[in-house]
Amino acid sequence: MGARKFPETATTTATDYGSALFGALRQHADCNWMKYIRHEFVCRLGDGSLPRSAFLAYLEQDYLFLLHYARAWAMAVVKSETAGQMRMAAATVNALINEEISLHVRVCEREGITEEALLNAREAPQNIAYTRYVMDTALGGDLLDLLCAMSPCVFGYGEIGCLLADADTEPVYREWIDAYCGEPYQELCRSVAGLVEEVRLARLGSDFMGSPRWESLCSRFSTAVELEAQFWSMGMDLGKPGA
Amino acid sequence: MGARKFPETATTTATDYGSALFGALRQHADCNWMKYIRHEFVCRLGDGSLPRSAFLAYLEQDYLFLLHYARAWAMAVVKSETAGQMRMAAATVNALINEEISLHVRVCEREGITEEALLNAREAPQNIAYTRYVMDTALGGDLLDLLCAMSPCVFGYGEIGCLLADADTEPVYREWIDAYCGEPYQELCRSVAGLVEEVRLARLGSDFMGSPRWESLCSRFSTAVELEAQFWSMGMDLGKPGA
Amino acid sequence: MGARKFPETATTTATDYGSALFGALRQHADCNWMKYIRHEFVCRLGDGSLPRSAFLAYLEQDYLFLLHYARAWAMAVVKSETAGQMRMAAATVNALINEEISLHVRVCEREGITEEALLNAREAPQNIAYTRYVMDTALGGDLLDLLCAMSPCVFGYGEIGCLLADADTEPVYREWIDAYCGEPYQELCRSVAGLVEEVRLARLGSDFMGSPRWESLCSRFSTAVELEAQFWSMGMDLGKPGA
Amino acid sequence: MGARKFPETATTTATDYGSALFGALRQHADCNWMKYIRHEFVCRLGDGSLPRSAFLAYLEQDYLFLLHYARAWAMAVVKSETAGQMRMAAATVNALINEEISLHVRVCEREGITEEALLNAREAPQNIAYTRYVMDTALGGDLLDLLCAMSPCVFGYGEIGCLLADADTEPVYREWIDAYCGEPYQELCRSVAGLVEEVRLARLGSDFMGSPRWESLCSRFSTAVELEAQFWSMGMDLGKPGA
Repeated sequence: MGARKFPETATTTATDYGSALFGALRQHADCNWMKYIRHEFVCRLGDGSLPRSAFLAYLEQDYLFLLHYARAWAMAVVKSETAGQMRMAAATVNALINEEISLHVRVCEREGITEEALLNAREAPQNIAYTRYVMDTALGGDLLDLLCAMSPCVFGYGEIGCLLADADTEPVYREWIDAYCGEPYQELCRSVAGLVEEVRLARLGSDFMGSPRWESLCSRFSTAVELEAQFWSMGMDLGKPGA
Repeated sequence: MGARKFPETATTTATDYGSALFGALRQHADCNWMKYIRHEFVCRLGDGSLPRSAFLAYLEQDYLFLLHYARAWAMAVVKSETAGQMRMAAATVNALINEEISLHVRVCEREGITEEALLNAREAPQNIAYTRYVMDTALGGDLLDLLCAMSPCVFGYGEIGCLLADADTEPVYREWIDAYCGEPYQELCRSVAGLVEEVRLARLGSDFMGSPRWESLCSRFSTAVELEAQFWSMGMDLGKPGA
Repeated sequence: MGARKFPETATTTATDYGSALFGALRQHADCNWMKYIRHEFVCRLGDGSLPRSAFLAYLEQDYLFLLHYARAWAMAVVKSETAGQMRMAAATVNALINEEISLHVRVCEREGITEEALLNAREAPQNIAYTRYVMDTALGGDLLDLLCAMSPCVFGYGEIGCLLADADTEPVYREWIDAYCGEPYQELCRSVAGLVEEVRLARLGSDFMGSPRWESLCSRFSTAVELEAQFWSMGMDLGKPGA
Repeated sequence: MGARKFPETATTTATDYGSALFGALRQHADCNWMKYIRHEFVCRLGDGSLPRSAFLAYLEQDYLFLLHYARAWAMAVVKSETAGQMRMAAATVNALINEEISLHVRVCEREGITEEALLNAREAPQNIAYTRYVMDTALGGDLLDLLCAMSPCVFGYGEIGCLLADADTEPVYREWIDAYCGEPYQELCRSVAGLVEEVRLARLGSDFMGSPRWESLCSRFSTAVELEAQFWSMGMDLGKPGA
């Protein structure tokens, strides 16, 4: 199984799914974004060298993550200002709870981890940090602040899915990759990007980089990106023997 | 068109949809519950004597109400403590946004009121009072407090649907009644009752009337019931010529 | 006791306490602002013709109002983005709970209404509508949205205090007026105006009327102004014999 | 400088400040509580062997921590159910912002760290995890859930202050210890304990260990205790050369 080679120009060619705001935030976060997207965990998912124990530890934590991520999207419903925004946010809550989470449950069960075990898994501090940071953003800011904190997860997984689309790896990693590079998830990314743009226009207007909020939005996005990278590191650590 | 006769023993025979807590709260609210369930607006929906203008004014406000009610159910997702509770709450957010609200849009459009007009309708103070009271309960209390504030709406409409099930009335009122006495809505009531019981057991245990929270839950439920009754009165008032 | 004459040009000469945003919002709300500031309740406070029962009913409700208004300011602490904003918001929470509320308790006790009676008073629907609208704004929007919903109360009372500063009226109404035209309250208005400007600059920048949020901020402010006017009407209604 | 000797029976003899609930939660968390209270960071604060760099790194993070902790107490104002609870919570918000935080600013300035530098310090992930966990508890649960998540900090620092009361250590560590073993802070602990008991009685009644919520309250308290211990470890790590 050959090592996965990433194209050198990945960032610049990567899609922004149609959101100028996301594109600009990603470009601004640059190095942090690369550390997240091309984290050792990701690379080794792609070339098959990731220890199975790290993958399972990650899946367990990600199950808990998704429950809180669905709560964050529920806050997006609460903070929506139009019926259309509400529909989009509510559909995402549903997709997370009834589709993305089931993938986790299915894979975990095949590997001998029941949903009950998933629910009772001890939440890692890196998991707490990321999920609660997003939730608190919902309490402290407006819908745009919240969407900036949620963007690294939704779009980053889409980008990782595409990066690894042709990877020749373990079947179970393949199944994971397919979930994120597949059309339904990529379509979700485009829909969320549409929502991000709509809210950005309503809250900042067209010249968003000239807004006094620009710096703070960058900082929020960047913190979330760092917390995503730490989530991958958590997976590596929890997968080590004796962890 | 004959006047609708309500059975005298309606309250005691009305179903609690399987929730002992709801049953006890309703019994405790007694007079207030009757004023809500058998409000003039309801009776005249049933016998066809309700002015069309009152019905349309109500529908307009109820459209705005449902958007906020969906936000309140999104808060129930946020405040859920198990994956099962989240699924139930998320499904309700969806049912509200994608089903119950569409009934309003469809009926209103047939009557010449566009969805855009609905969205731009001025929210009546009675509407603001009720919806924001529920939202603030979500911020101030726990999931059980929230469910008590949301119960009068979900179960009350179920009960009204059943009360009016055989009413011989105007076709458009008939369509409204059918939506609430029909099996899908009645099934929703039973599901919500199941959620209420689950949360009640997890937060109060079996002897809920012996809990120090009992009085405050009754008071919260009762306030919500009064706000529901005022919502009907608002419909009557807004339907008057010149309103 | 002569009828209070308001200067005809009150609005245009009234101070904006140093907040350009508040000044512009008030001007935009124009008629609604006048209906609030020169409401019959206010005029009759000034000329002494307000029934004592209306004043006491108002005070009772206003006591409950202030508890929720302090909660809204606590949300401003939660939503602050700098240490300075937090200090200002926290000081206001304290001023409300430990100073403004005590005035109510003191006056009410002298009139034979205990604090216990105040706490157990039934919240009028107009009171619920206004307070919970503000709380929900805190949940749905950012600090600027919240400050726009809270502005009509803080600045409006300051303006009413000044309008009635020289009124020749009943001693108990005089005491109320003095609380709001007095230097400590006027200073509070200037401090809050400073906070409003700081947050406005941080969220919208200098050209706030060119922001895509301008219309929605006007609408939020205007709704809060209408809810304030209805609060005065509630006082008149509750003060009527038999209410 | 002699090594600080902790009495072996510290836990059982440590005061519960008058709160039976806190006493029971601490006893239940047992080992975790010990790992927090007698963490290496604490022991070395007491015997003077703590590297100055670790202490300063801790102080920097703790400054940011306190800002969020004050936000959490503001949520306690929002979630209060009586005027007395509000007063107590509002007073604590003030004490944190205007007193405890000033100690940090003063000490840091003496060590050459300006308040501006404090505000711009990068929040460590352990800091994010703990503070946002508490904030999210405020959003998800009721006032009692929130108080359980906040208790380890307020009472733990009180207990550590008493444990180190007679420590013979560096002057700057001495000043820190004096802040927490001093009467004003110990009195704050007793007041908060009074609030905890009042809310516990109102939400659970006297037999709180028989409540179905007992297990979940223990788990919430215990998670907060672990996050406190990780906060000390963060201090040790950040103080290492090259960190």
